[in-house]
Amino acid sequence: MLKINENFVKLPASYLFVDIAKKVQLFSQQHPEKEVLRLGIGDVTRPLPKSVIQAMKDAAEEMGSSATFRGYGPEAGYLFLRDAICKNDYQGKGIEIDPDEIFVSDGAKSDTGNIGDIFDRENTVAVCDPVYPVYVDTNVMAGRAGDYSAYAGWSKIIYMPCKKENGFLPELPEENADMIYLCFPNNPTGMGIHKDELKKWVDYALERHSVILYDAAYEAFITDPEMPHSIYEIEGAKKCAIEFRSFSKTAGFTGVRCAFTVIPKELTFNGISLNRLWGRRQSTKMNGVSYIVQRGAEAVYSEKGKREVRENIAYYQNNAKIILNGLAHAGFEVYGGVNSPYIWLKTPERLSSWEFFDLLLEKANVVGTPGSGFGQAGEGYFRLTSFNTTENTKEAVERIIKSFSAA
Amino acid sequence: MLKINENFVKLPASYLFVDIAKKVQLFSQQHPEKEVLRLGIGDVTRPLPKSVIQAMKDAAEEMGSSATFRGYGPEAGYLFLRDAICKNDYQGKGIEIDPDEIFVSDGAKSDTGNIGDIFDRENTVAVCDPVYPVYVDTNVMAGRAGDYSAYAGWSKIIYMPCKKENGFLPELPEENADMIYLCFPNNPTGMGIHKDELKKWVDYALERHSVILYDAAYEAFITDPEMPHSIYEIEGAKKCAIEFRSFSKTAGFTGVRCAFTVIPKELTFNGISLNRLWGRRQSTKMNGVSYIVQRGAEAVYSEKGKREVRENIAYYQNNAKIILNGLAHAGFEVYGGVNSPYIWLKTPERLSSWEFFDLLLEKANVVGTPGSGFGQAGEGYFRLTSFNTTENTKEAVERIIKSFSAA
Repeated sequence: MLKINENFVKLPASYLFVDIAKKVQLFSQQHPEKEVLRLGIGDVTRPLPKSVIQAMKDAAEEMGSSATFRGYGPEAGYLFLRDAICKNDYQGKGIEIDPDEIFVSDGAKSDTGNIGDIFDRENTVAVCDPVYPVYVDTNVMAGRAGDYSAYAGWSKIIYMPCKKENGFLPELPEENADMIYLCFPNNPTGMGIHKDELKKWVDYALERHSVILYDAAYEAFITDPEMPHSIYEIEGAKKCAIEFRSFSKTAGFTGVRCAFTVIPKELTFNGISLNRLWGRRQSTKMNGVSYIVQRGAEAVYSEKGKREVRENIAYYQNNAKIILNGLAHAGFEVYGGVNSPYIWLKTPERLSSWEFFDLLLEKANVVGTPGSGFGQAGEGYFRLTSFNTTENTKEAVERIIKSFSAA
Repeated sequence: MLKINENFVKLPASYLFVDIAKKVQLFSQQHPEKEVLRLGIGDVTRPLPKSVIQAMKDAAEEMGSSATFRGYGPEAGYLFLRDAICKNDYQGKGIEIDPDEIFVSDGAKSDTGNIGDIFDRENTVAVCDPVYPVYVDTNVMAGRAGDYSAYAGWSKIIYMPCKKENGFLPELPEENADMIYLCFPNNPTGMGIHKDELKKWVDYALERHSVILYDAAYEAFITDPEMPHSIYEIEGAKKCAIEFRSFSKTAGFTGVRCAFTVIPKELTFNGISLNRLWGRRQSTKMNGVSYIVQRGAEAVYSEKGKREVRENIAYYQNNAKIILNGLAHAGFEVYGGVNSPYIWLKTPERLSSWEFFDLLLEKANVVGTPGSGFGQAGEGYFRLTSFNTTENTKEAVERIIKSFSAA
């Protein structure tokens, strides 16, 4: 008799953003005349850089002739892309990372979700609260979360509250956390972290022999020179941290799918290399990323590609400013948005996160993400993203201000 | 203190095809003048169908304008592709499968590797011997395999020997197998299975409440009308089987990456739907397949695409015939190759699989895959593939015949 993985049954039936999509779909069906503005899921709207498109078209063309056709590629990604990543994102910035420490994948969601495969299920997991749901849900699936209670969350997970009182930065846990998920600039709060602050986490991890799972998917939005773009800018990090990067928010790859994970060769536990374990996991459970997509990602590092990407980022950064300043000026309590595409809004009129979601959709026809969907400490907060068009962003801000009193 | 997943340590450090690639690379470095012919890894050589390339170029173009840009797609795949799959691979062949029973992914390797996530680690796994290593290795990683001994293999895995004596078809296990991996046409033996024979497995699974994990990646190579292209051609299969399909070998997508998994809604255990569990797994751990790739896959089902694909398959089928007939005529003992791109060769001169691999590389400069790499029952056998060019295939057959006496 087959036994299913009972941990799945403990999970809410669907994923946060799937729930939101259903609510919005229902509203649109009931009010086809209303134009809904989406500042909810962190999806981009700017078209792909021209250089990326050209590279993908050329790669597709190559696949059409026997002489240049490519079949199975290296599971960890083609060297041309891993080289470009190393040179541009690391070596060029004084960080010594080699191509064989890079693993190209179809998304940071896949990698942050699958990385648990190489760790024992008895490890203690620590996450920020609020947090990107994937870190928690995938550990529930793996049996590391224990049992859920509405009051305390998952019994075996260490939650690190990030609230107004601590500047939305987590505090070092007193318990021994073996697997520590950190995401900076943060999703959902939009807060960045300074080098000296991140150094505390590296020291903690080195002292307790923990691994830091560092999600840097939003590093391109950093404006503050004191904020590290990579955790490897911190001394000792190569001995305790895995870094996740993505082309999704930087180059508009949410629909193209390409990301990469960095596992330094120095990162070992009891003499066992995590780089080797992940390499084994990837070469056994996947066959690499589409050649066409990898050529597109390579083009992100061309001079033209870099210029185009900078323009896209600047566009979204301007949107973030519009939301932040617009709402602040109207008296709303807003955070993030400076080193991040996300604005973290205190819900007005003492509304709960979901109450505000429903009212916002109903009154302003604007979609955001309820803070409580990211964890208990997110209750009473709401995430807005800067990934829509500037026009829609301005319109959405006006509607929010019109529909709610900041007081 | 972080604990790694010790199951990884039990595994051989690298994956079979990685080992082979290294051996071949070394040989080529030492003998740069020798032209090595690869009939080893099951990778295709024919360029992509023109219709697929055009569709991908058009899709890339769409991503370049705000009006047609696509960000995150549905995790299970775009409806246009799931519809095309249903209509062409199932409904058109009298099998009732709905689009919401289809999950598009980046490869059958990913899906057969990840499917274990939704099952308890205490399930008993049954595999054919010889077998595609991914089924075994991923269950080792999950802790379902027990301990390895050179004599008996993995202690908790039920091996179903497929030898000359039983026509290379597995026999129903006496023990209760909860998760049964079947692959037909088979990799590596190249043997197909008839409907009445497969029916026995469906009946076994229904009676024991087991799940059949049916890998149909090679169905396009079936020539025998008595052989099912889908397990759902067998009555009752929707209540016990998950089917894995791929565009890799059919449409030459090994470097493009697209596949799909079918989980009928009727497939439940203790009232829990596997379709729902897999949907939850996929929506939590991945973000769907590249839009560009999905448009390419859709084009496989266009009239032009179908014609082009049939031509490619016919080309490889002809190569298989060349190997099969050529070696048989020279007195070699060969199997498979009729409903499959794989030829299963009894090693000549009583050589072990790896001895023959090394000698074949050295004397004939031909690369194949040692049967023992697929399991103990594969010892003394050797896999050749028909995915190279016809010219190279002919040349390789001549070299094999010249270098070895069949006796």
